Amino acid sequence: MGNKNTRTSISELGEFGLIDRLTQNFTTKNGSTIKGVGDDAAILEYREKQVVISTDLLTEGVHFNLMYVPLKHLGYKAVAVNLSDICAMNATPRQITVSIALSGKFSVEAVEELYSGIQLACEKYQVDLVGGDTTSSLTGLTISITAVGEVEKDEIVYRSGAKPNDLLCVSGDLGGAYMGLQLLERENEVFKVNENMQPQLVGYDYILERQLKPEPRADIISTFRKLGIKPSSMIDISDGLSSEAMHLCKSSGVGCNLFEDKIPMDFQTKKMAEELSINPLVAALNGGEDYELLFTVPLDDYEKIKNDPDFTIIGHMTEASEGINLVTAAGSAIPLQAQGWNHGAAK
Amino acid sequence: MGNKNTRTSISELGEFGLIDRLTQNFTTKNGSTIKGVGDDAAILEYREKQVVISTDLLTEGVHFNLMYVPLKHLGYKAVAVNLSDICAMNATPRQITVSIALSGKFSVEAVEELYSGIQLACEKYQVDLVGGDTTSSLTGLTISITAVGEVEKDEIVYRSGAKPNDLLCVSGDLGGAYMGLQLLERENEVFKVNENMQPQLVGYDYILERQLKPEPRADIISTFRKLGIKPSSMIDISDGLSSEAMHLCKSSGVGCNLFEDKIPMDFQTKKMAEELSINPLVAALNGGEDYELLFTVPLDDYEKIKNDPDFTIIGHMTEASEGINLVTAAGSAIPLQAQGWNHGAAK
Repeated sequence: MGNKNTRTSISELGEFGLIDRLTQNFTTKNGSTIKGVGDDAAILEYREKQVVISTDLLTEGVHFNLMYVPLKHLGYKAVAVNLSDICAMNATPRQITVSIALSGKFSVEAVEELYSGIQLACEKYQVDLVGGDTTSSLTGLTISITAVGEVEKDEIVYRSGAKPNDLLCVSGDLGGAYMGLQLLERENEVFKVNENMQPQLVGYDYILERQLKPEPRADIISTFRKLGIKPSSMIDISDGLSSEAMHLCKSSGVGCNLFEDKIPMDFQTKKMAEELSINPLVAALNGGEDYELLFTVPLDDYEKIKNDPDFTIIGHMTEASEGINLVTAAGSAIPLQAQGWNHGAAK
Repeated sequence: MGNKNTRTSISELGEFGLIDRLTQNFTTKNGSTIKGVGDDAAILEYREKQVVISTDLLTEGVHFNLMYVPLKHLGYKAVAVNLSDICAMNATPRQITVSIALSGKFSVEAVEELYSGIQLACEKYQVDLVGGDTTSSLTGLTISITAVGEVEKDEIVYRSGAKPNDLLCVSGDLGGAYMGLQLLERENEVFKVNENMQPQLVGYDYILERQLKPEPRADIISTFRKLGIKPSSMIDISDGLSSEAMHLCKSSGVGCNLFEDKIPMDFQTKKMAEELSINPLVAALNGGEDYELLFTVPLDDYEKIKNDPDFTIIGHMTEASEGINLVTAAGSAIPLQAQGWNHGAAK
């Protein structure tokens, strides 16, 4: 990493010099990576398993705000959200490609910060950077990542396998990433009014981390294997519980009852919601970016799952004719509302 | 395709409605595509062969100008340039993912035009669209495509296998895409001054097509198989012959002599160059975007290759100590100049 005080312009290095500098610290760790960065394409080998592939595009001002998102965190998160999609197939991520388009405002040192976050995520999840593209843009930063993973054929979990009476479960807790974002935006507004104000972030480290440094739940995939569980359907929560539950129901041709008072939320999420006069349920249902796994298991798996601290049973699947409902604490069933194109729209 | 006179805003459909509409006409054709669009990730199966993966990011105003590039052509070209990278490994493309970021200026009908070009390329090259991301941007259009292909392990051709005395060969002809771009830019400038002027494009259909609708040379990969040729090194010409020849030399640890008067150029390329007072050699060496294949073969393959109209032998490899030289028609050797970050910089 360069000295923070130096500012090298990208044109000094040229495209190929920049790529060399950005990728020099990356090493490959997976046997399935035959050839990584440095040719027209990467070569992978997947003779034993099936190949899982997913891609995401993040644009400045829509998916991230560089006023309060450090570049290193952004790099980490961009990788994390893609690995999360691989995990949602019950698969293990192995490789990524990273493409970036940069406007003139970015120095080599800034791009190195971004790549240091990408590298950190690659190391934590034992994923290899095998390719990409580095180019220019007229405005802002765009990051496109494609993740590749592997899975045994009979271990693949689609969105479409849920059956009536299956238990609806979620990993971790929800709403934290959204409340972290609200906090960051509040402090950013304060800062814009008075640059001498210090941000008030103390006591909210968990929700800030949920927003700035989400983790794909690769550990949950391992837990499934240990417990001998294969979910009947699964999706990761990028757009909010409400939207994802509807995807599972629509793909599987079933309905569901989701119990409001079962939805797991952290203390900080609730506290921040109270402070900002937001219903924390809105954060959990529609906030998104929690990157937890939402999945269904047959009722027979109840014993395997009930005592695991990673999981919360939040409802059950029904016949499609019963609809997709949120059951309130008072016991009344309210149809869940569809959310479309909301992901990122306000971010 | 919708009526050209209607303009549906993307927010009317929502993200998922848009994706459904864009992908409804795509069918999968390859046995290696187990699950395409519609889940968190696609599932592919490559038990017999190795997987080749490459990615590109194109941004509006840098890689394309929508003033004179029709969206359908843009979609086609975005796919073509990625498939070209797969071909450059001596591999066969099979799948793509397509991510786009759109600003508010794009209607559903405009995005459908883009996808009609993507679909045309998928059909022509028998490639399956298996995933992607559709999101918004603050300004302009960004397209990121990842291409996946397959190759037998012992058929892979890297940039690094060239040896001294190997023949340096190129498919097709060079410089056309660059001269097509110059023509389009000239007519665009005229149009900006006087909107009633009709563009003067007659007689230049070939170079326009080279710029607007380049084709990846998948046919050349088939020809190699038929002729029993495995190149010792290969790269596709995206940045210009000069830059690509230097990549081959650098990766292989060799030098080369490239003969100026052997470089294949079309009549229209030379004619346009003359009209614009540009040295056509500059177009071939530094123009880029021809997406032809530059490769080396052992001298022993001379008999196999010499009469094939698809190929031109333009030079030979040397010891690294001899350098990377352009041999002029007069017989003098001039060191080739490095080109960096030029691709797209002026486009």
